[in-house]
Amino acid sequence: MSELYAARRGRLRDRCAAAGSGAALVSRPANVRYLAGGAPPGAVLLLGPSTGEADVLICPGTPTADPADGRPDEQLRIMVLPAPGGDAVVAAARTAAAAGAESLAVEENHLTVARHRALGSVAPRLRLGDLAGAVEQLRIVKDEEEIASMRIAAEITDQALGELLESILVGRTERHLALELERRLVDHGADGTAFPTSVATGPNSGLGRHRPSDRRVEEGDFLSVCLGANYRGYRCEIGRTFVIGTTPAEWQIELYDVVFAAQRAGREALVPGAEYREVDRAARHVLAAAGHGEAVAPRTGHGVGLEIEEDPQLAPAAMGKLDACVPVTVEPGVHLPGRGGVRIDDTLVVRPEADGGPELLTITTKELLAL
Amino acid sequence: MSELYAARRGRLRDRCAAAGSGAALVSRPANVRYLAGGAPPGAVLLLGPSTGEADVLICPGTPTADPADGRPDEQLRIMVLPAPGGDAVVAAARTAAAAGAESLAVEENHLTVARHRALGSVAPRLRLGDLAGAVEQLRIVKDEEEIASMRIAAEITDQALGELLESILVGRTERHLALELERRLVDHGADGTAFPTSVATGPNSGLGRHRPSDRRVEEGDFLSVCLGANYRGYRCEIGRTFVIGTTPAEWQIELYDVVFAAQRAGREALVPGAEYREVDRAARHVLAAAGHGEAVAPRTGHGVGLEIEEDPQLAPAAMGKLDACVPVTVEPGVHLPGRGGVRIDDTLVVRPEADGGPELLTITTKELLAL
Repeated sequence: MSELYAARRGRLRDRCAAAGSGAALVSRPANVRYLAGGAPPGAVLLLGPSTGEADVLICPGTPTADPADGRPDEQLRIMVLPAPGGDAVVAAARTAAAAGAESLAVEENHLTVARHRALGSVAPRLRLGDLAGAVEQLRIVKDEEEIASMRIAAEITDQALGELLESILVGRTERHLALELERRLVDHGADGTAFPTSVATGPNSGLGRHRPSDRRVEEGDFLSVCLGANYRGYRCEIGRTFVIGTTPAEWQIELYDVVFAAQRAGREALVPGAEYREVDRAARHVLAAAGHGEAVAPRTGHGVGLEIEEDPQLAPAAMGKLDACVPVTVEPGVHLPGRGGVRIDDTLVVRPEADGGPELLTITTKELLAL
Repeated sequence: MSELYAARRGRLRDRCAAAGSGAALVSRPANVRYLAGGAPPGAVLLLGPSTGEADVLICPGTPTADPADGRPDEQLRIMVLPAPGGDAVVAAARTAAAAGAESLAVEENHLTVARHRALGSVAPRLRLGDLAGAVEQLRIVKDEEEIASMRIAAEITDQALGELLESILVGRTERHLALELERRLVDHGADGTAFPTSVATGPNSGLGRHRPSDRRVEEGDFLSVCLGANYRGYRCEIGRTFVIGTTPAEWQIELYDVVFAAQRAGREALVPGAEYREVDRAARHVLAAAGHGEAVAPRTGHGVGLEIEEDPQLAPAAMGKLDACVPVTVEPGVHLPGRGGVRIDDTLVVRPEADGGPELLTITTKELLAL
């Protein structure tokens, strides 16, 4: 595994060298985790300008091994700050300056103005640059090890959801169902939740990222759930909509069919080389053709991995093309104010057609179940 | 209630005027909530330079009413950005510039370098200043309404903990106990958890903010738990350590007595006018005198309110004095590597002696219970 992290750091170093930058300071936790193998809380990674110098993981306090944070690569030098309140960013700037670095690229999309200023004042001779999302870009295409972790996260998520469907739902609150799902994720081996579980009933159904309320499940409701496990730092996401009671109403069947068709169109558009916005358009077009163009969220999917929301965005104005081995969500939905709605959300990995096309990680059925 | 938020905004405006700044842009969610009554996800508050202009809450997407986020003050003008992906910070800069503001104070301790730059580029004539924690300073002393919410949060927390103590613990994992506590918090009316619940057993016990693992509770273990409810956005924190089995070992009783005495010393030092570091020293001194000076965390307590960790810090180098109506935690602990340890943590409100001294919000017993 150590070679893996060293290789990732090498790729970042190459990018920095090409951009004329010397040392690099990585502070965004998911990026630290990606390059260092582990990201203890508050740790930052200082990357030397040449492979001759050891990279340093600077931790405010002794690092402990939490499965979701990972275990730091043993090739790394680890510097523990004496006072756990110490700022690792400031210590990194001092270390880079002491090592003779002339420039330091930082993550301007993560560092606050105040920390950036503190960094500049402890090492005034260091020319500060911007990593400009370089690590996020490296993270888009996953290796098979990463995909294997996501596959396990998806299995756990499917299990948790499957068990909920077998229990009695009417009369229980959104909050309780959400907590129950989260408990089951952990029961099945998750290191935590990938994001706060959403359970939306009746008029709330179909809303993206609805926060569970005290509303109770009623007969005739749409029920939409969205959940995901975190396994070894890797996340996945599933969203399903069900109907409560014996028979769905006519409008419920119609709306469900439209969203189902849109989601299928989005999934089928996932081929290497497809533009991000083409995938979005495929799903969006189906909804618009059925008269729901206004009710659609600004994007219909996004990348997923060490963070629940990563590049790429599947949205009308997104620029770029899909590569193989990019995991994304496809999650169109429609919400009709006052009535409710439908969301269907899967995590898939883009694969060439020769390999069987997109790999569906979240395999819970997408039939409209009446529970 | 509306007058309350207007009065808070008035105090911030006075500070800005005194510092020579015109408009102010508040982006830190807890600060937005404090000044606007509600903080929908991603919303920012733009404060006009004079009371004559309406303040504007800028929301990326239609705000929904979540109890923990609060409900925006009706006196505020609410601007909803058409695309939910829109950046409210950038929209605020445009709005301030269009209204003729010459300067804008922002939260440099919250804005990233990248967003700060985006803000500067959409409104290049706006002189950017720094709010420098002004809202955080206003938030330190709470009003009775705020304290009432914290009191309810503490009651919920005590109830959840009390129920756990009546259940069978041996053989259950840290993770399961943590999830169980979180479920009970919500059962008793919490709008969510104040922070991730910590359950630490055996060698993990006594560690601050230990993340629950798969370790199971065993006979003879120390068990430390730390949890808190979020009620209407306000948080509290309780930490207790128990022993599992019939009789605590000698070393467990001794260690417990020392931490208990330290925590009591800290609580008793909570009087209006006391220096922050005096309170810390009172607790720290007891631990050091018993030979545990090395094993103590860099601080023994902190402010609490809309965020779980606020000013002040109760730490050796902290500058400042306690006021009445400041809620703080007092949470000394000792962890002996390989053996475990003890933490005792309460949330209290500083009150003058004439009013009976510090008000203890978290009232669960601090006797060493054998469970």
